[in-house]
Amino acid sequence: MVVAHKDIPYAHPLSPLSVDETALASDIVRALHPNTVLKFRVIYLREPPKDALVKFLELEHAGQLTPETPRPPRLASVHYVVVVDKESPQSIEAVVDLGKREGSEHELEETVRICNESSLLQSKISALSLPDGFETVIEPWPYGGLDSKDENRRYFQALVFAIDTRKQNPDANFYSYPLPLIPVVDWVKQEVIRIDELATGGGNDSYHATLPKKGIIDHCRPSEYVPELLETGMRSDLKELNVIQPNGPSFSVKDESLVEWQKWRMRVSFNPREGAVLHDILYDGRSVLYQLSISDMTVPYADPRNPFHSKQVFDFGDGGIGHCVNNLELGCDCLGVIKYFDGVLNRPDGSAHATHNVICLHEQDNGIGWKHTNWRTNRAVVTRRRELVIQFILTVANYEYVFNYKFDQAGSITVETRATGILSAVNIDAGKTAPWGNVVAPGVLAQNHQHISCVRINPAIDGHENTLVQQESLPLQIDARTNPNANAYQVQETQITTFTGLDAAPQNARLFKIQNLSKRNPVSGKPVGYKIVPPPTQLLLANPHSTQAKRALFAKRHLWVTKYKDDELYAGGRYTLQSTIEKEGVSDAAARCDDVFQTDIVIWSVFGLTHNPRVEDWPVMPVEMIQLHITPVDFFTVNPALDVPSNRNLSSQYAQGMLNGDVNGVDQGRKCCN
Amino acid sequence: MVVAHKDIPYAHPLSPLSVDETALASDIVRALHPNTVLKFRVIYLREPPKDALVKFLELEHAGQLTPETPRPPRLASVHYVVVVDKESPQSIEAVVDLGKREGSEHELEETVRICNESSLLQSKISALSLPDGFETVIEPWPYGGLDSKDENRRYFQALVFAIDTRKQNPDANFYSYPLPLIPVVDWVKQEVIRIDELATGGGNDSYHATLPKKGIIDHCRPSEYVPELLETGMRSDLKELNVIQPNGPSFSVKDESLVEWQKWRMRVSFNPREGAVLHDILYDGRSVLYQLSISDMTVPYADPRNPFHSKQVFDFGDGGIGHCVNNLELGCDCLGVIKYFDGVLNRPDGSAHATHNVICLHEQDNGIGWKHTNWRTNRAVVTRRRELVIQFILTVANYEYVFNYKFDQAGSITVETRATGILSAVNIDAGKTAPWGNVVAPGVLAQNHQHISCVRINPAIDGHENTLVQQESLPLQIDARTNPNANAYQVQETQITTFTGLDAAPQNARLFKIQNLSKRNPVSGKPVGYKIVPPPTQLLLANPHSTQAKRALFAKRHLWVTKYKDDELYAGGRYTLQSTIEKEGVSDAAARCDDVFQTDIVIWSVFGLTHNPRVEDWPVMPVEMIQLHITPVDFFTVNPALDVPSNRNLSSQYAQGMLNGDVNGVDQGRKCCN
Repeated sequence: MVVAHKDIPYAHPLSPLSVDETALASDIVRALHPNTVLKFRVIYLREPPKDALVKFLELEHAGQLTPETPRPPRLASVHYVVVVDKESPQSIEAVVDLGKREGSEHELEETVRICNESSLLQSKISALSLPDGFETVIEPWPYGGLDSKDENRRYFQALVFAIDTRKQNPDANFYSYPLPLIPVVDWVKQEVIRIDELATGGGNDSYHATLPKKGIIDHCRPSEYVPELLETGMRSDLKELNVIQPNGPSFSVKDESLVEWQKWRMRVSFNPREGAVLHDILYDGRSVLYQLSISDMTVPYADPRNPFHSKQVFDFGDGGIGHCVNNLELGCDCLGVIKYFDGVLNRPDGSAHATHNVICLHEQDNGIGWKHTNWRTNRAVVTRRRELVIQFILTVANYEYVFNYKFDQAGSITVETRATGILSAVNIDAGKTAPWGNVVAPGVLAQNHQHISCVRINPAIDGHENTLVQQESLPLQIDARTNPNANAYQVQETQITTFTGLDAAPQNARLFKIQNLSKRNPVSGKPVGYKIVPPPTQLLLANPHSTQAKRALFAKRHLWVTKYKDDELYAGGRYTLQSTIEKEGVSDAAARCDDVFQTDIVIWSVFGLTHNPRVEDWPVMPVEMIQLHITPVDFFTVNPALDVPSNRNLSSQYAQGMLNGDVNGVDQGRKCCN
Repeated sequence: MVVAHKDIPYAHPLSPLSVDETALASDIVRALHPNTVLKFRVIYLREPPKDALVKFLELEHAGQLTPETPRPPRLASVHYVVVVDKESPQSIEAVVDLGKREGSEHELEETVRICNESSLLQSKISALSLPDGFETVIEPWPYGGLDSKDENRRYFQALVFAIDTRKQNPDANFYSYPLPLIPVVDWVKQEVIRIDELATGGGNDSYHATLPKKGIIDHCRPSEYVPELLETGMRSDLKELNVIQPNGPSFSVKDESLVEWQKWRMRVSFNPREGAVLHDILYDGRSVLYQLSISDMTVPYADPRNPFHSKQVFDFGDGGIGHCVNNLELGCDCLGVIKYFDGVLNRPDGSAHATHNVICLHEQDNGIGWKHTNWRTNRAVVTRRRELVIQFILTVANYEYVFNYKFDQAGSITVETRATGILSAVNIDAGKTAPWGNVVAPGVLAQNHQHISCVRINPAIDGHENTLVQQESLPLQIDARTNPNANAYQVQETQITTFTGLDAAPQNARLFKIQNLSKRNPVSGKPVGYKIVPPPTQLLLANPHSTQAKRALFAKRHLWVTKYKDDELYAGGRYTLQSTIEKEGVSDAAARCDDVFQTDIVIWSVFGLTHNPRVEDWPVMPVEMIQLHITPVDFFTVNPALDVPSNRNLSSQYAQGMLNGDVNGVDQGRKCCN
């Protein structure tokens, strides 16, 4: 039970910054730099130190909060740039205390403007002699890692496409007309300093660009996805499917952040670096996780030709995701009765505004939850599996990512990522192919790449002192006493006491338990815990000597365990933009070699997708899904979903009219339980 | 288009046998054995030889069927036992031609009767001095592999439990009171020939039973799952969630077997050996698969103590699944508008009867299908992912398995298995634990085990001549020309020309394409195909010298490819009951070393679950899911779901009332698109 706002004059310590608080944070920073131009990149809540917050949460859990309860400091992280000298702007990350009142540019849009104004770029484009009616489209893109040839400055690059304006539709798909030019913008000089020209040959050609480029998109063809431009028209035989919750949802939301559902209880927050973050997750009053978040994702491309080695995005770290997050719409991004959460974003001048519907919360049915039929009596008891879904979606230029945190009634948590959107593609000459990609439309080469994500889990299994234990199921030798019939196998468990490399090993059924060794399950006698089976996906393929690999050291292991440290949140490092090596990321945290036995630990789960594109992925790819499961193992004394009612759903109907030749006949009259 | 029944006097060649045909098959067999006692085990359709059926299907696809079209022979497989001499009954598997009119006991129920009538068993049970009000329950169980000590006869075993009759409820959970006795029934002699006594100690005790056993269930406690017996009561905060399809489903069903949905078209049949089988699967008129089925599943247990090495079930092969298949109920096993299919089963005397609702067919929503937002225009195009689900469910004594074949609009097929039901458990003394299982309730040791399934795929990618191609993504050495920046990786493809061991290798992103090398995708230039990523689950752990391993040779590889052969359907062998080695299974098929290059091939996909029980799995376990994905790769020229309408769902609602402290407030007035 949380004391409501009217009783205490400030938000819950885990509530994201309000619009007013965000503006206050920029005011405080501005006061530190009188008469100076500041550009604010991102402003968001910095969580209070854990020891202070835990004291508060314990009182909250016990129902002992009062208006007099001391509150942890209310802090804001403010990332901003001070432009005193245009040649050497200073990037600063300040932490301001909003209680005490002491004390980035939106580069992508700037990049578009600078490219459009560049005469250097315009002359290169003119040389291409685009067909009548085609205009160029600038797609800003993080620069990737700095090369030895680069000065240590802030660069952006852009991919360049052409749009067929004759369609008179701003959503005509320009990605099917890639132009072989990459302008590089020096963001300090505010100009295009270089144009990288791209090779358009195939695998047997020179890796370098060869002029002339006239007619470069003559062999390309439209690849539309907006309905009004589809030449095939839309399918007309898909009938409505509605999710109706006549009595409303089974969840409740308090304080715009506290979600309660089916014995689960958690806080939901939004910030422009990690998106939706879940805090203080309890089941039936017992703590399970302190925090759960998407820490980062890297997307390296595997085209060996210059300059594609620098085509590597950190979707969370590079620029914050504030400008990428989708404002979700009713009836589009989920079905049923939906609760939306707003976020707060800042503008470059430090002012703040609300951004609506950045997280949605709803319930869904996911088939049978558990079932047993006693064949003697023919009595079946069957429950549905209801899930609570907390969703946010990012549009990162061409790609989109759908993130779902799912909770079920059996005490399990699933983190699901879905990749969709449009492949990043480059021009290829007619009739050619290449081993580092697939021709997904005429003239369009979609390059092979990987998506490698990291989910950060700060567990609190019945308290903050937890231990990671590796379990494997292994063959057992024949032995007259212990395995006389050769059918037994052994289950081997190893406590992880200091950091060591941890990877998936599905051939051994390897899994990791997060246990609280000081509390035992009264039935089995084993320590209470939750388990993670690391998704056994391929890790980073780039050569360890590559800049790509050095920038994403986190992507070389499936599982990391580190000791909790305040503000250590980002697997790929604090500043990924133009990084040359992962700094202050999980590899640095692991290098401390902290003791991780029965202490406050953080688990970093790394998984991904090696994406060698299919033609079917064009022009917008069907979702590719990966799931991470966090499952109780001897945490409860019984299946926690045992008390889920096995009620018959009375709204289901027979489709019995469908005898020979009948189409879609539904017998509206028959209901079950008649 | 199929010629309807009124035009041709017999069913489609893929339609399961009708009740009349089933009875006819037994009549034909009976005529072969005048004055003899026959016991019919299973009777079901034997598919016509493929060459004859393919000719028929090609005419059907072309819309050229007429009443005069020659039909393949209508065949029935009849498994029966001839009891001339009680000491040497003959098992016969006959194929009868129903057109020409030439020419098993339900052992489990018999086993219960024989055990209940056994004075040997009754005396052992009396010695246990069960508490007042407890009665024994006999759970028949396949005998497993024959031991050297056994004669070559038909045995059954039974597990024995006690039920608390004071609850006056026949569905009180007897599995929480396991008794340490296993009676062995000789089915020919119709008597209990032996009682195996079970050890009840822990890991440090003798592996042999030690008398006396009095008070054997005194430390056991109730573990109920039927709602009226739950002491905690049911949760009351789960609100209704209904799936409403106001215009009916998007599918149609003709001939009670032909399903058409969203460009998909397939035949669904049921037989008592494999359950739901899918045939002749086409997308938009192009053939994809000739047949898709669950071939078998083995469940070996890993308790080293005698006689648990013979605790190994083949859930499909051991007795047929006819008596295990659930009769599905509206509003319980799926939501929405549901089409049910009936099956036909035979009785021991050869008479036949329909069994209702053994397969259900419905649609479901599975989140976002694809999405892209153009950040320039803020135009989002988003589609839902609608799936067609064909489901059947088995109750195999204590366990249940839910099998789903799922089709989506992007051309993909998913085979999903869900394990639920009650763990098979044995008695353990108070306070003890064992390394080969977990104590899931007082006195109840759930033994470690595996579930290993095989899905049989007979592909027909644009025709019947297909080739399996292995693809891996592998690191690439730095090379001044081909990988100067160290970011590239290589994609290696290998055609499989003769059978070779094939396993999952997720660390290499290994996948298998099924390609038709004679047809190329006009966009990419690559052969058209579908891909399978073998689920990288642990394979059989039992020592290769064990009977368990020899009986399930299929369970030692993730993927097998063999050349198609009529009636070669069962991965674990044709007769698994009491088998000592897998015979006529996939290992024998593979041993032919057939050429599998551009020919009619069969893919056998093996995956499973190593199940070291959790306390949360008791008394009924939450579903454990595994999915196999069969996905187009350069089969189409574009995302096949591109023409799915991105209509807004108008029945979704805001849950906006939920401000501070409000619970479950739904603003019924607000609809989208107002």
